[in-house]
Amino acid sequence: MSKKTEPARPEARLPKGLFDISAGEIRATEEMLRVIRRVFEAYGFEPLDTPAIEYSDALGKFLPDQDRPNEGVFSFKDDDKQWLSLRYDLTAPLARYVAENYQHLPKPFRRYQSGPVWRNEKPGPGRFRQFIQFDADTVGASSVAADAELCMLAADTLEALGIPRGQYVVKVNNRKILDGVLEACKVSSASQRLAVLRAIDKLDRLGIDGVKALLGKGRKDESGDFTKGAELVAKQIEPILAMIDPDQSSSTDLGVGKTASGQAGIEEIEEIEKFIASAGYSDRIKIDRTVVRGLEYYTGPVFEAELTSPIKDERGQPIRLGSVVSGGRYDGLVERFTGEKVPATGVSIGVSRLLFGLQCLGKFAYSATRGPVIVLVLDRDRIADYQAMTQKLRGAGIRAELYLGDSGLKAQMKYADRRGAPCVVIQGGDEKEKGAVQIKDLVLGATLTTIEDRDEYRKKQEEAQSLVPEEKLVETVQTVLARHKA
Amino acid sequence: MSKKTEPARPEARLPKGLFDISAGEIRATEEMLRVIRRVFEAYGFEPLDTPAIEYSDALGKFLPDQDRPNEGVFSFKDDDKQWLSLRYDLTAPLARYVAENYQHLPKPFRRYQSGPVWRNEKPGPGRFRQFIQFDADTVGASSVAADAELCMLAADTLEALGIPRGQYVVKVNNRKILDGVLEACKVSSASQRLAVLRAIDKLDRLGIDGVKALLGKGRKDESGDFTKGAELVAKQIEPILAMIDPDQSSSTDLGVGKTASGQAGIEEIEEIEKFIASAGYSDRIKIDRTVVRGLEYYTGPVFEAELTSPIKDERGQPIRLGSVVSGGRYDGLVERFTGEKVPATGVSIGVSRLLFGLQCLGKFAYSATRGPVIVLVLDRDRIADYQAMTQKLRGAGIRAELYLGDSGLKAQMKYADRRGAPCVVIQGGDEKEKGAVQIKDLVLGATLTTIEDRDEYRKKQEEAQSLVPEEKLVETVQTVLARHKA
Repeated sequence: MSKKTEPARPEARLPKGLFDISAGEIRATEEMLRVIRRVFEAYGFEPLDTPAIEYSDALGKFLPDQDRPNEGVFSFKDDDKQWLSLRYDLTAPLARYVAENYQHLPKPFRRYQSGPVWRNEKPGPGRFRQFIQFDADTVGASSVAADAELCMLAADTLEALGIPRGQYVVKVNNRKILDGVLEACKVSSASQRLAVLRAIDKLDRLGIDGVKALLGKGRKDESGDFTKGAELVAKQIEPILAMIDPDQSSSTDLGVGKTASGQAGIEEIEEIEKFIASAGYSDRIKIDRTVVRGLEYYTGPVFEAELTSPIKDERGQPIRLGSVVSGGRYDGLVERFTGEKVPATGVSIGVSRLLFGLQCLGKFAYSATRGPVIVLVLDRDRIADYQAMTQKLRGAGIRAELYLGDSGLKAQMKYADRRGAPCVVIQGGDEKEKGAVQIKDLVLGATLTTIEDRDEYRKKQEEAQSLVPEEKLVETVQTVLARHKA
Repeated sequence: MSKKTEPARPEARLPKGLFDISAGEIRATEEMLRVIRRVFEAYGFEPLDTPAIEYSDALGKFLPDQDRPNEGVFSFKDDDKQWLSLRYDLTAPLARYVAENYQHLPKPFRRYQSGPVWRNEKPGPGRFRQFIQFDADTVGASSVAADAELCMLAADTLEALGIPRGQYVVKVNNRKILDGVLEACKVSSASQRLAVLRAIDKLDRLGIDGVKALLGKGRKDESGDFTKGAELVAKQIEPILAMIDPDQSSSTDLGVGKTASGQAGIEEIEEIEKFIASAGYSDRIKIDRTVVRGLEYYTGPVFEAELTSPIKDERGQPIRLGSVVSGGRYDGLVERFTGEKVPATGVSIGVSRLLFGLQCLGKFAYSATRGPVIVLVLDRDRIADYQAMTQKLRGAGIRAELYLGDSGLKAQMKYADRRGAPCVVIQGGDEKEKGAVQIKDLVLGATLTTIEDRDEYRKKQEEAQSLVPEEKLVETVQTVLARHKA
């Protein structure tokens, strides 16, 4: 280190919306990823990875959050002055990959990808600026059988993760129906269409009145911030609200069937219903006209899944978790690059959010892993001997650790407890003289205080603390571990 | 999608130094990570994850590459105008984490972390701007037993990854010896010290003459770029070169023992040698005075590992792979935040580089996974039936896929081949009438052309193509899969 005095000490903190992840959460996430991977592989998808950084123009700007500069994306300039961005999803990089490698790919091209994505969102409770997605996409398939398949994949994945049938629902709709409604009520500007889309996407959070305000002049939220609306007139707003009102009847009543895109949307939905019924998934996948999804790039079927059992946080407060799976068809994304139509559809599991939901439901609990065996340091001049013992334990496949701090025996025992060590290995002067080691079973030791019977106590105490010849170290530790094997 | 005409189509390409990763490489990497994790867990380390983005001042600037703006780090401003950076290693975020959570951590604190890091380096062959590291660190341990342990961990990890003993070496040195030499020859400015460090770190690439130039006025590389030197005079350069010259004798000859830090460095190295010998690792871990490591934050023992067998790329050209493991002690990193000394040491496995090396040595080959069973589409009106069949196969735990493209039978068969399908499922009008399906064994089918015996051919041909009642679909496919199980 430089010996210059530093001007000021930096503060040890993370930017808002970014979080460290504990050992328990890492282990639970890894277990989840393993389960999801197994289901996605069963569907025939192959893995692909793309880097976190892409050219900004290659990713495009399709995020629903308009309130932020850069439209919610972290961006920076490369040394040659070109703009780079962190990926905000795994779909835009896939479109770039397909456009770049189209000639050499099997068609259809089916890949899955998991990894972090970054959103430069206004940080807030439950809003992360880095989170994990797990996507599957089929590129080069125009049939809505591909969309229906992804809905089934979502259902199978949620069940594989331990959510019983009936405690989740996969909801499907089609953007073309919205297009039909907008055409029928003469909303034709691209920016108004987008504003409508994003207003409807907030139905879950803001309710029908909130959406109504956003379709009109705009809406002021609790913090006093004003969001500009789509500026539609009452005659335009009505049929849109009718479409997303669950109490209203089927979409054919809204006149959308009279427009070409509305008609196409209705037909596609009917086809998807047929596929779902034929495969026996009608109890899990439902048509729902309120689903539009906020991402701009969807062009046809859109779908999402949510957990239906009420979810509470650790303080018993009910939580609106939102959708844990989302997806849809984006027939225009590859065309952006190549000018050639390449139909595509994909689904994304919100791993971070789903894990949170699963944990609120008592699943995927962070399991405490058994800590390592700790070899204590009684005589600091003999660390080399203690380290050799530790290596011997590791060599026998035992999770083990030499105490590497500077503290005394009492602190060392506390450390071993804190780490969840099954036992500690002790060799002070007395033991060394006898060529012996002492092994203390901490799990058994912890139960001693609850034993009232004197003989039983003595017996357990003896078991919990064994003095053995040094060459029996590995064997004795193995006996302790076997004693406490789940 | 917006109907506005786009001004120009973006080009589908990645920034230099960033790469997509194929299915084979992903599977091999995952297998590697599993092996490394197993060894690190055996040593008692617990996992921790930190986000990719941190405050720039929290990460600090310690990278060896001075030639780049931002000193090799990708940086950008947050909305509140504070600078953020992508992590360039996993050590700086750990120091931030420890400083932030010190009160609540067990001491010593031992964690491992794996994940991508980003360097804004000049892209070039073998220089990646995103790569995976796998780190283990012990914070709160002043004894060099902690450093010795990490060298053993490196050796055990390389062997667990299939590198035989003798085909790799872990090399250890101590920054304090360099400090002693610099003190003895009166190099006292921090910037000169840094320039010396970085010059020596390039010994492997530039040779002793290159280092000599960089210690003096500077050096022009092949491309004509000039790198400014440390501006030392001949009397200062000589002892430094003597120190790193493998033909010269031990460090005590250099007068470093007369300086306090030189003496401390020599003692620490002797202690590490003792630990290594006692644990039986002397054949794998060697003292090597040329090792300094380029990262500025190291304060004591430094170490690295490299593969010793000659490595060639796919065209047979020899490759200088460099070190695949590196690490060292950084007693000042947590102090940057808290003002309190917290000794710490860590090791980092260069996963991406090591995988490349292993593959050149014929290990961790990208294994081709068996593709899915493909259900072909003969009659487009019956896709729902075919999809139901596919779901039935998946339900039985069979990797299966419905052909989702728009092409005819010939292209579908080609697709199945391309995907490595073990068999295809066919139900045209004829089969449907009989309530049957045809299952074509593609693996067996591919061997038919090599069979000369007529009876044998007919027998195998029959086996390769079976017409069975539809209810025997799953059973028959399972028979085919069992036939080709490795």
